[in-house]
Amino acid sequence: MNEHHALLFLVSLAALLGVARILGELARMVGLPLIVGEISTGILLGPTVFGRVWKGGYTWVFADAHAQTMLAGYTTVAAVLLLVVAGLEIDLSVVKRRGRSAAYASILGVLLPLGGGVLLGSLLPDFDLVHPEQRVLFSLFLGVALSISALPVIAKTLLDLGLFKTDLGLVVMAVATIVDLVGWLGFSVLLGPMRGDAVDVPRIGLTVALTVGFVVVSFVVTRPVLDRIIGRIEHEGKAAAERVLSIVILAALLGGATTQAMGLHAVFGAFIVGIMVGESPRLKERTRVVIHQFVMNVFAPVFFASLGLKIDFVRAFDLRLCVLVFSIATVAKVLGCSVGARLGGLRWRESAAVGFGLNARGAMEIILALIAHEAGLIREQLLVALVVMALATSLISGPAMKRLLYRREDEADVIALLRRGAFVPILRARTAAEAVTELAAALEGKLGALLPFARETVLERERMASTGLGDEVAIPHAAVDGLKEPVLALGCAPHGVDFDAPDGRPARIVFLLMMPPHAFEQEVRVLASIARSVFDQAARDALLAAPDAAAALRALGASSARIALAPQGRRTASLADM
Amino acid sequence: MNEHHALLFLVSLAALLGVARILGELARMVGLPLIVGEISTGILLGPTVFGRVWKGGYTWVFADAHAQTMLAGYTTVAAVLLLVVAGLEIDLSVVKRRGRSAAYASILGVLLPLGGGVLLGSLLPDFDLVHPEQRVLFSLFLGVALSISALPVIAKTLLDLGLFKTDLGLVVMAVATIVDLVGWLGFSVLLGPMRGDAVDVPRIGLTVALTVGFVVVSFVVTRPVLDRIIGRIEHEGKAAAERVLSIVILAALLGGATTQAMGLHAVFGAFIVGIMVGESPRLKERTRVVIHQFVMNVFAPVFFASLGLKIDFVRAFDLRLCVLVFSIATVAKVLGCSVGARLGGLRWRESAAVGFGLNARGAMEIILALIAHEAGLIREQLLVALVVMALATSLISGPAMKRLLYRREDEADVIALLRRGAFVPILRARTAAEAVTELAAALEGKLGALLPFARETVLERERMASTGLGDEVAIPHAAVDGLKEPVLALGCAPHGVDFDAPDGRPARIVFLLMMPPHAFEQEVRVLASIARSVFDQAARDALLAAPDAAAALRALGASSARIALAPQGRRTASLADM
Repeated sequence: MNEHHALLFLVSLAALLGVARILGELARMVGLPLIVGEISTGILLGPTVFGRVWKGGYTWVFADAHAQTMLAGYTTVAAVLLLVVAGLEIDLSVVKRRGRSAAYASILGVLLPLGGGVLLGSLLPDFDLVHPEQRVLFSLFLGVALSISALPVIAKTLLDLGLFKTDLGLVVMAVATIVDLVGWLGFSVLLGPMRGDAVDVPRIGLTVALTVGFVVVSFVVTRPVLDRIIGRIEHEGKAAAERVLSIVILAALLGGATTQAMGLHAVFGAFIVGIMVGESPRLKERTRVVIHQFVMNVFAPVFFASLGLKIDFVRAFDLRLCVLVFSIATVAKVLGCSVGARLGGLRWRESAAVGFGLNARGAMEIILALIAHEAGLIREQLLVALVVMALATSLISGPAMKRLLYRREDEADVIALLRRGAFVPILRARTAAEAVTELAAALEGKLGALLPFARETVLERERMASTGLGDEVAIPHAAVDGLKEPVLALGCAPHGVDFDAPDGRPARIVFLLMMPPHAFEQEVRVLASIARSVFDQAARDALLAAPDAAAALRALGASSARIALAPQGRRTASLADM
Repeated sequence: MNEHHALLFLVSLAALLGVARILGELARMVGLPLIVGEISTGILLGPTVFGRVWKGGYTWVFADAHAQTMLAGYTTVAAVLLLVVAGLEIDLSVVKRRGRSAAYASILGVLLPLGGGVLLGSLLPDFDLVHPEQRVLFSLFLGVALSISALPVIAKTLLDLGLFKTDLGLVVMAVATIVDLVGWLGFSVLLGPMRGDAVDVPRIGLTVALTVGFVVVSFVVTRPVLDRIIGRIEHEGKAAAERVLSIVILAALLGGATTQAMGLHAVFGAFIVGIMVGESPRLKERTRVVIHQFVMNVFAPVFFASLGLKIDFVRAFDLRLCVLVFSIATVAKVLGCSVGARLGGLRWRESAAVGFGLNARGAMEIILALIAHEAGLIREQLLVALVVMALATSLISGPAMKRLLYRREDEADVIALLRRGAFVPILRARTAAEAVTELAAALEGKLGALLPFARETVLERERMASTGLGDEVAIPHAAVDGLKEPVLALGCAPHGVDFDAPDGRPARIVFLLMMPPHAFEQEVRVLASIARSVFDQAARDALLAAPDAAAALRALGASSARIALAPQGRRTASLADM
């Protein structure tokens, strides 16, 4: 019978992966995130549709216990790897540097949804709870569930808008990071005691101690070791990527097993491992891309599709709960983050954009809800409501931000700036630092005595987070104290200079932008405008062929005209699409 | 209890992956293939050592039925993906072009081991067989098992020796491909009837028909469809790699499920899918690398380590069987291939090298033996003997080839050739074809009227199999009718030209080599010598900075001196290490 189980396992795996990828791509084609298609897959193949339409077929494929256990092995690994990828996206240095500007938004962005969730939890009738006698813990869980953010969705939205590496973008990412850390920490602590039948204070204390202990040991002991290992390996040439890949996956499995053994969930350990690995300055972008691509395209679709296999969405859909959860989550999050961002020094328009950006819950919320449901903490109805809320908040996040930030008249900026700035037809630089130095030198006429300081500021900013955008474009930039107006230089490097871009390609077009201090809004506009001016390959090719500044200006001008004529550009899918 | 199973699953997975990677790297450090370490992991963690030393611990980690079923899900996927990767390595165009030179070696390289295996099968005493009444089928299986080759090991050996893209290398690869195809086809056909208790002729007929039908449908119907899909996607920019990844894995799962449903094994379908995908000229090298890295570093170690979990190697070790299987396999394969290669026109020395190269069985043999054991076809003793034979033949393959082909005095060739040839300090070419054209033009003085024909021959050869070696080096070359002595040109392309190298990096150093026809041995020497001359980064950097031919010659001379002083260079691990 062994072969029959293997057959059923392969069939169910192929069905989930195949349909999830097809529906995912369809979703993408109409402008929805991949995950909408992936969740729909489970609804289609699970008891909701397939089980109703053809019970025999559904039972044959998905009801064999042995094959389903094999599938559970696959989705367990998938959950662990998903959280590693989520952890990899986290950049603690952003928190360090932008933590202060992000502090208010983080605090209010956690407190308000937490309060909203706790309020909702205490007001819901008994029949919405699995264990009505544990209402306090249940309310705390709801508070945590409403307060987390989806870093990957937010990163993708910022990328789409060309804001990812702007200061505004960094603030948003910093807030999301803090909120995410607090949320998962809280969830892990709650998971242990909620599994028991009665509230057990010493056990909660133990869980808190264990959780904190795990995090501390991870960062104080494990992280430097891991960093040194990765560093030693990444310099060994060809086999490096392969070894680092093994080490990251292994560390994730070990971290997951450790937290699981501690009574927390495996995903928490994997998440911490992901952060530690992502923090290692020695991890190559290419290794990151391999992990990301494989996890997001081979594991994640099956994980999200398998959600619907366990639940009848029609039976479990409770409009009242969906509306309640969505409204409280959105109002509390947008309000909390906007007010916080305003207090942190942004204008109202940008603050609102921060609020909507951070409102996206995406895959993180779904993973958390699924774990809570599997652990018997929440009923199917609430699981569905949380999934609906996660998808809806992610969907409105991008359009809302775009609406608040994007203005048509910005397009001309880059040309005007470049006309006053400098153009270097062929850079000699081999490294990012050399490119910055060379472009800064070309701006000597504009910068004067400020030159050395300005150059160092940009280099410092570059060390903090590299500015390779991908598609062979990099935009090193910084706010320079003492500068009165923005200064722009453009250089072409036909041989390519490594700016650690997400797609791993070296930059051949390098813009050096220096801004006056505290000009957040202007910076956002100019950076987005620069990014848009070289969106299409034709513009980049024309630039690279430009022998002088006049030709470069013509190339950018032609590109702007094309963009103005084209429908509102949606970039092809980025790395993070959940 | 669900969480306890998940914990045990994660622990066993982490243990297998972690120990397998560590022992694999240790094996690599002492010059053994990765797979030796991976197989040892199972021996260490399984009943052979861990189970003897600490039975309680072994039982806790590896005896939970639920967790082991989850692990089986993982290794099932691993087996499917391993065969996809094996299929990807196959290049049918090599068979088409070099089929004739490879024909004798292929035929004899299959027939002799097949005969040896059948002979062994008919002479073994009854107690070595699971079903003594099925001796004919058992003997046929042994014949097939002894006749297959391990394409990846062979490819790696050729790469290590700098012979991968020489004509000799192509002949060896063509033979290995043919032998592999015949072997897996035969095995699939045998697997069905051997599973039953009695020989069932109509059923064998049906299996043969199904197998042939599957292969025909795959290549006639599925392949063009798959190729078109991949082609459409690969030109869509950023998301292309991700989508192709999903499609390849999905196709492998579907192919595997199809053959499994037909009564063949899932790996056969995956293998055919791998070949079809690998044949698609539109599959990008980068996509291939992502699949390869993830499969070989996250799935394969666990698969090979899990082998030892099922078997007590001490109890199942039967010296008599090991010696018998190894000697018959080696003598039959080396003899068959060497004689065949000699008949195909090679010299004895090279023919013997072909024989030892093709003697490597590696991972393919182990997968086949494991499947046969799981299906109840062979006893543990024979499984162990086949594993030992697979490892031993792989181990002696590289050193034997090196010994037969490598000679110290070859080093000077490249400098002498270049002194008579041409040097282009900066190539203008943007494509591989342009680079070849430009370098050929630089050789006009040497080639005279032969120039256009010689150029077209090299371009034709380049289309057949690109010559990017990786490390930014490419060596386009061909045998040109009418040429009396080798001609070499060297060009530097600081901007990089895409030669479809295994590591995806564009070539910045391009050697154009034209050889007189039928000078196999000389070609091997010169190509290996060129490859060695730019092995180290320092030599490549010096070359790229060379303003004229004299400086280039100095750079290569310095490199040769360094190599002569250094211990026999072992390249860092290549993609295929099994």
